[in-house]
Amino acid sequence: MRYGFGVDLGGTTVKIAYFDENGTILDKWEIPTVTAGGGVQILPDIAASIKGYMDSKEIGAGSIVGIGIGVPGPVDSKGVVNKCVNLGWGVFNIADRLSELTGFPVKAGNDANVAALGEYWKGGGQGCDNMVFVTLGTGVGGGIVIEGKLLHGAHGSGAEIGHLVLMRDETEQCGCGKRGCVEQYCSATGIVRMAYKHLASTDAFSSLRILEAITCKDIFDAGKAGDAVAQEILEKYYALLGEFLADLCCVVNPEAVVLGGGVSKAGKVLIEGTKPYFQKYVFHAASNVRFELASLGNDAGAYGAFKLALDAFA
Amino acid sequence: MRYGFGVDLGGTTVKIAYFDENGTILDKWEIPTVTAGGGVQILPDIAASIKGYMDSKEIGAGSIVGIGIGVPGPVDSKGVVNKCVNLGWGVFNIADRLSELTGFPVKAGNDANVAALGEYWKGGGQGCDNMVFVTLGTGVGGGIVIEGKLLHGAHGSGAEIGHLVLMRDETEQCGCGKRGCVEQYCSATGIVRMAYKHLASTDAFSSLRILEAITCKDIFDAGKAGDAVAQEILEKYYALLGEFLADLCCVVNPEAVVLGGGVSKAGKVLIEGTKPYFQKYVFHAASNVRFELASLGNDAGAYGAFKLALDAFA
Repeated sequence: MRYGFGVDLGGTTVKIAYFDENGTILDKWEIPTVTAGGGVQILPDIAASIKGYMDSKEIGAGSIVGIGIGVPGPVDSKGVVNKCVNLGWGVFNIADRLSELTGFPVKAGNDANVAALGEYWKGGGQGCDNMVFVTLGTGVGGGIVIEGKLLHGAHGSGAEIGHLVLMRDETEQCGCGKRGCVEQYCSATGIVRMAYKHLASTDAFSSLRILEAITCKDIFDAGKAGDAVAQEILEKYYALLGEFLADLCCVVNPEAVVLGGGVSKAGKVLIEGTKPYFQKYVFHAASNVRFELASLGNDAGAYGAFKLALDAFA
Repeated sequence: MRYGFGVDLGGTTVKIAYFDENGTILDKWEIPTVTAGGGVQILPDIAASIKGYMDSKEIGAGSIVGIGIGVPGPVDSKGVVNKCVNLGWGVFNIADRLSELTGFPVKAGNDANVAALGEYWKGGGQGCDNMVFVTLGTGVGGGIVIEGKLLHGAHGSGAEIGHLVLMRDETEQCGCGKRGCVEQYCSATGIVRMAYKHLASTDAFSSLRILEAITCKDIFDAGKAGDAVAQEILEKYYALLGEFLADLCCVVNPEAVVLGGGVSKAGKVLIEGTKPYFQKYVFHAASNVRFELASLGNDAGAYGAFKLALDAFA
């Protein structure tokens, strides 16, 4: 049996997991992400943490297949990051650098893409060689697996699916500077924004009106409790999400769509609500799709990162 | 030097080309597609034509790498076709069948996807390992190349990009039964439909009004000649095409977008007109894209079909 590490590098913490080659997490821990000074300390910190762990557990270097790492920014298939704004990084080959620091082979990918690979390997997308993973969180991100391999994109920006145009007449700006992106509607913040707009457009009673600050969960809870206005908001949401997922499926023709992120905590109701709109908008030849909820939570990135290394070096 | 065949199977004719392994067409010809009787004769006819050609040229079986074939319908990565309506075919493994009939290894793909591979290998997308090919013809089709390989899709329906939703409020129906598909606007028939609607909405002078039946070429010609109404129609067209291509690039992050089909005969003006809208709608990290015109014309399918076989068997 051989072993390896999956690293999920975030803007505030680095999650590191130690795996056996079957994909079982044997141990996991976190270290802070030190972004000061252009993030020069980040990779040395990760290398030191892995080396320290190996020393403490008396793990021999010969048993290590390699290290995989997911990074919050564009990474091409060769491991070159192209500006990770949150980390202060410019353009360099992170795989080569971390490999020099550790002595192990390293494979790198974008964090959302790598999480998709994790869900494909051990989560909601198991057994689906063609899979689209969509995270409905603060923003909308995701990753695409094609015949078991990640779509990285020419410049490491594959599957930036939160920024497809959904409403070309939108007046408010998306975080990316454009107007009408998927993320402005389908994210957890997007549904809240839609809720406030909808409440302002009607005088109808809603339990949402008494809340100081509406959350995504409040809207789903109110909908489940029979609040008609919340249900209208959810129908709008399902329609937009269904159209968006239909467009993705026309491009990729996956076996499964796996939904993760904060909104997916609503559970099966999210899938049941979205499916009729998906079927309305999808091309018939791409309509045979399984919908699944993500199941790995915060570990998806570590799983996918190690899988990247396993595919490359095992 | 080894050799092989690329076959582009259409609803009325089969184009067959004989290649050397560098991708030079040494000979090409056509035979009719006999769709009578559920299309049972199609593959035997192709096999007989290839065998007859080899006999007449005294080509030894040992010099043949294999045969590639593009088919007008969904084909998965194993060669299973899933109903080719135009040919009368149901569900079977076309690669296995043609291989039994010829004695050579066979690889099959969807015709539009295979044409994309041809343009990637020898046409407008040369050197771009990640590429989107879009045919703007009677309909809108295309293919996606990722790290040099075709995206087939789980059920052989990858890159059915003509059926993304572009106008969710469309009242007219697309050929596929949905409403508001890309194909209803961005195809050669789509731009003509938009032209008639635009002409009906204004009394302004236009040279297009005297034509009995407006064609795509008429609209571009009138626009070039300074016809203001034609230019308005083209701006609408460029805006929709630019948004559609931006959405594709957010998903795939390609190095190049290659435009083919009847509308692309308008030439560079199509690219110049569309680019500003593409830049408006695309996510910044996916905006570094080369636009190219397809350059292989009707041979793209044969090139791509042979390339499929070459990648699989050489």
